[in-house]
Amino acid sequence: MVEAQLRVIYGDTDQMGVVYYANYLRYFELGRSELFRAMGGSYRELECQGFMLPVVEASCSYRAPARYDDLLLVRTLVLELRRASIAFGYQIRRKGEEQLLCEGKTLHACLDRAGRPRRIPESVAQLLRPANA
Amino acid sequence: MVEAQLRVIYGDTDQMGVVYYANYLRYFELGRSELFRAMGGSYRELECQGFMLPVVEASCSYRAPARYDDLLLVRTLVLELRRASIAFGYQIRRKGEEQLLCEGKTLHACLDRAGRPRRIPESVAQLLRPANA
Amino acid sequence: MVEAQLRVIYGDTDQMGVVYYANYLRYFELGRSELFRAMGGSYRELECQGFMLPVVEASCSYRAPARYDDLLLVRTLVLELRRASIAFGYQIRRKGEEQLLCEGKTLHACLDRAGRPRRIPESVAQLLRPANA
Amino acid sequence: MVEAQLRVIYGDTDQMGVVYYANYLRYFELGRSELFRAMGGSYRELECQGFMLPVVEASCSYRAPARYDDLLLVRTLVLELRRASIAFGYQIRRKGEEQLLCEGKTLHACLDRAGRPRRIPESVAQLLRPANA
Repeated sequence: MVEAQLRVIYGDTDQMGVVYYANYLRYFELGRSELFRAMGGSYRELECQGFMLPVVEASCSYRAPARYDDLLLVRTLVLELRRASIAFGYQIRRKGEEQLLCEGKTLHACLDRAGRPRRIPESVAQLLRPANA
Repeated sequence: MVEAQLRVIYGDTDQMGVVYYANYLRYFELGRSELFRAMGGSYRELECQGFMLPVVEASCSYRAPARYDDLLLVRTLVLELRRASIAFGYQIRRKGEEQLLCEGKTLHACLDRAGRPRRIPESVAQLLRPANA
Repeated sequence: MVEAQLRVIYGDTDQMGVVYYANYLRYFELGRSELFRAMGGSYRELECQGFMLPVVEASCSYRAPARYDDLLLVRTLVLELRRASIAFGYQIRRKGEEQLLCEGKTLHACLDRAGRPRRIPESVAQLLRPANA
Repeated sequence: MVEAQLRVIYGDTDQMGVVYYANYLRYFELGRSELFRAMGGSYRELECQGFMLPVVEASCSYRAPARYDDLLLVRTLVLELRRASIAFGYQIRRKGEEQLLCEGKTLHACLDRAGRPRRIPESVAQLLRPANA
């Protein structure tokens, strides 16, 4: 489990005065990428090795709005690691607060450059095993 | 059921060469807004009357990638209309093609300006009854 | 000169209740792409031929705010066509209104896939000569 | 002069494999907001006092591309502080590198809630005087 930190900018809000719903998926991505980094790898390297992890499914529950200038924590963890797919879970809170603002899930397939399903490389699987990540 | 049309811009893609996953939620919103308009109302008017329909849950299945310059059709329909909430369903295809690129769902609460749950105004409910929309 | 049309979505606005300033550059891009299309080409084809037109400079004057649900017209024209660069100009108005909301300019270099400056292919230059576009 | 730090996410890139040109304006905004904070204020407070600083002009020079996963530094300073307007300058580099990726400028008017031009409140002007900021 890894926590990434981000500051909500004006451009993330909408005229309701809160973070626009699609932008939480951007925050999830930041969380995923920090998880890779914290595990000692990076998603960029994975791509250099010829693999991609495109999102197959995403879902999000909006509990309470995040607002401009909020300092958010994105908690990311590996929910499930399978042969050729991986699921991440996310929780977003304001730094120093308990209240859950948003939680979600993404499911990713592992593909090679030609777009064919591939077994997740063992070096990556090792990093991301839920026991670790 | 209403179809909205949009052109994928460069800014919607990512370095995988496909539409970034969060942007489909933007397309869904365009679809919702066209549904309101087609029903003879507009979400803007609803807000002027003091109501909001913030997203409570969103989910998305990514079946095949949309790409730069694609002309997309967003098919939007009302899945369920309840006292104080409403669910929309979405399907995205390339214009003139059968293949489903993406489908999703959003659930919305009806709130007043103070953020309290409210019954959806009858004038709006009438427009959006699944039989109509 | 070509006019592209677009509908402002919620996700384009910010908490001031107006379109966020960076999003006008997205609208400019839509205008550019429609200009190519109207001239009988497409930017996508240009890329397939191995050329890119990355933005080197961009500027924007914000005169009056665009708002949620506005139907906007983006008027795009070629300001200057040189050997290895091209400048576009943009004006954005609400459909059916005279008032200028925003105007801007972008300057683009012509590069090949390796990132080296290249003469704009004659087939493209012909389409985009200010007399035509 | 203040430096803000940010990580480029996938959603910031486009299919050229680099950061999409409009997103640098988002990075500029992050820089501005960190400048306010470093000076001991915040843009949020300014808004609470009934003032807004909408962007009137923006310009950007793109020197070299930023890429996915880059850790960027946004250097922001006050270029000019006038009675009812303020100009900020920005420079973006990769952390630990000299090369300038992008530089830009934004000019802001000071308005009250009714949209009338207003003198910048002295408490804010003091914070932002170029000698300080």
